[in-house]
Amino acid sequence: MDYEQLLASRTRLMQASAIREILKVASSPGMISLAGGLPAAESFPLEIMEELLGSVLGKYGSKALQYDASEGWGPLREALVPHLAARHVHTTSDGVLIMSGSQSLLDGIGKILISPGDYVAVEAPTYLGALQAFNPYEPRYVEIETDEHGLIPESLEAVLSRQRVKFVYLVPTFQNPTGRTLPLARRKQVADILKRHETLLVEDDPYSDLRYSGEPVPPIKSLAPENVVYSTTLSKTFAPGLRIGVCVAPEFIQRWLVTGRQGVDLHTNTLAQALAAEYLSGGYLERQLPKIIDLYAPRQQAMLDALERHMPEDFSWSRPEGGMFVWIEGPKGFDAVELQNRVIERGVAFVPGRYFYVNEEEGAATLRMNFTAADPDTIEHAVSVIADAIAEQLSAN
Amino acid sequence: MDYEQLLASRTRLMQASAIREILKVASSPGMISLAGGLPAAESFPLEIMEELLGSVLGKYGSKALQYDASEGWGPLREALVPHLAARHVHTTSDGVLIMSGSQSLLDGIGKILISPGDYVAVEAPTYLGALQAFNPYEPRYVEIETDEHGLIPESLEAVLSRQRVKFVYLVPTFQNPTGRTLPLARRKQVADILKRHETLLVEDDPYSDLRYSGEPVPPIKSLAPENVVYSTTLSKTFAPGLRIGVCVAPEFIQRWLVTGRQGVDLHTNTLAQALAAEYLSGGYLERQLPKIIDLYAPRQQAMLDALERHMPEDFSWSRPEGGMFVWIEGPKGFDAVELQNRVIERGVAFVPGRYFYVNEEEGAATLRMNFTAADPDTIEHAVSVIADAIAEQLSAN
Repeated sequence: MDYEQLLASRTRLMQASAIREILKVASSPGMISLAGGLPAAESFPLEIMEELLGSVLGKYGSKALQYDASEGWGPLREALVPHLAARHVHTTSDGVLIMSGSQSLLDGIGKILISPGDYVAVEAPTYLGALQAFNPYEPRYVEIETDEHGLIPESLEAVLSRQRVKFVYLVPTFQNPTGRTLPLARRKQVADILKRHETLLVEDDPYSDLRYSGEPVPPIKSLAPENVVYSTTLSKTFAPGLRIGVCVAPEFIQRWLVTGRQGVDLHTNTLAQALAAEYLSGGYLERQLPKIIDLYAPRQQAMLDALERHMPEDFSWSRPEGGMFVWIEGPKGFDAVELQNRVIERGVAFVPGRYFYVNEEEGAATLRMNFTAADPDTIEHAVSVIADAIAEQLSAN
Repeated sequence: MDYEQLLASRTRLMQASAIREILKVASSPGMISLAGGLPAAESFPLEIMEELLGSVLGKYGSKALQYDASEGWGPLREALVPHLAARHVHTTSDGVLIMSGSQSLLDGIGKILISPGDYVAVEAPTYLGALQAFNPYEPRYVEIETDEHGLIPESLEAVLSRQRVKFVYLVPTFQNPTGRTLPLARRKQVADILKRHETLLVEDDPYSDLRYSGEPVPPIKSLAPENVVYSTTLSKTFAPGLRIGVCVAPEFIQRWLVTGRQGVDLHTNTLAQALAAEYLSGGYLERQLPKIIDLYAPRQQAMLDALERHMPEDFSWSRPEGGMFVWIEGPKGFDAVELQNRVIERGVAFVPGRYFYVNEEEGAATLRMNFTAADPDTIEHAVSVIADAIAEQLSAN
């Protein structure tokens, strides 16, 4: 059988990500990994899982194991209403759509909105998983410029004036990969630009609950509700393995997302949704979140301290108030892939930032480091190893 | 916002299914539904769920809540090897791919294989969910003729001689919607035809464990392993809400399916997979399956008896040895949609068979009835109501 000739033309845009290869190496025994994007295993509420299951089975019995509605498990949609309202996303339970992780929302958006050749506007750099979700639908990308405060509104304005796009995709809070958060003033400008250009925004917000300092900033969804498909997740505050994504979209878009997923997965795992509903409505999340923050805040501080201590002068980095990542920029001409190869030999892994750009060369000198999956001492050690390798690389070239 | 103009061109092929509307009506209070395809709630092993969770948490702890490999949870892939071997599908754990329900395998196949305009060959009638999964990738369909023993090999041969197709899609065992099973002799012919034409088959096998009489027939996968993507599920023998699909594909295809799903859902729910692994490896499935069969066999018998008792002479029906459905064919000119409207008024629902055809008119006189979701007395009553309405309709027209 010649399987290759069976492949659809769209597969030319679907590649196993370079990051996956790095993560494979990073997960080998003895490696210290700042490469992944995993929540710490210690952040999961393992000790209450049996209690949650008992509660689910007591309340719902076999319903929790049966096929369920494509829109999501009723009690979970209900429980999310106040949770979302606390973030200034006001909706009813009917307005909440549960997806199989936020990745499945990105796939659904691609499926219902992107015709081959359509333009999608993304930040540079942007979340790689979004590109992987959109690529099979064969879009073209336009990049929006960013600085240390995230997306530059004037660049968005310029892009939308020049180019009709199907939607804009942003991670405005503790962005992956940069950790940057768009300030309120810019969010207002973005909301205004979206309204004036009648443009749809997909606002991906997986990290905003993970705030270690500073004040919450309302999502763009709250400033332009009709223009925004808002996406969040319980992966960082409950458990990623349960694959629960949450979406609040304009009703027309929600209806199409539901139609689309009937061909994809019918609905999200019922039992996982029921457990999540108990986790939220039983007040467990409120008790767990401070523990997660107490776990991550010192890890982030350890990373920022270690960078301060070890990094050479011409390197700069983001100082996020939350999230999971710090973004490091080296001087022009610095090659982070070469660095990656050097440090892997020394048992440390990070992700070269270039993979988060549509045009990879733009990010050649950048690094993404995760701080949630290792303890403070390990982080200090790993950063020092990376800094030593940088010094070596700079003197060698 | 004019959302409609944002829709991708492929959405013209994506419609909310008529069956979903029927199921909505069928689920209203007081209705007797033979319309759905739900396993009976009593078939779920509710009483062992806490035991399974205890075992999962004891063995794997937080790993069962963490992100996991796109290929599937290791212990589940392991546990499926002997389960599949018992069906004559021989593979290693690396050869087993876990999907989020078999629907997600169908979506994945569509995504990696169908370019717009490509031909896909399907039985007439075929499983509607497969068409819903494939449609967004804009295939054209060619139909393969069937008779009371399922697909007619000569028709497959004729189709493949005439027309290059990307793949053939079949449900050869206790088919949805007809309940028919392709006999071994025909399977051998099909395997031979696939090999000669170097054609790929997607063999969807959700029901073969639900056998109430007769002898198991080996899957086509066992007769032409290199030509077949084999799909099965734990939805009928464990719990559909857990969304666990199982796929054994040629390695090249499996690799592309894994790449594809990284853009869709990353991986199947870890906890659900871990529970399923315990369900299989702990011998629970072996103990549960006879109970499920003891529950369903009398329901099927009740339906066949009731049809015998009540149906007018010019109606015929399938007599499956397993599965979930019986297929009824009325005389030429009979309109099952009109019948559906008549019986709904009397509190009974079934699905008109036309929705399972690419060209709906072909199936105008057919009905699909499910027997797993109602008890024998209810089934007897529902069939008598339908038969009365048929008599009325025949005399009115």
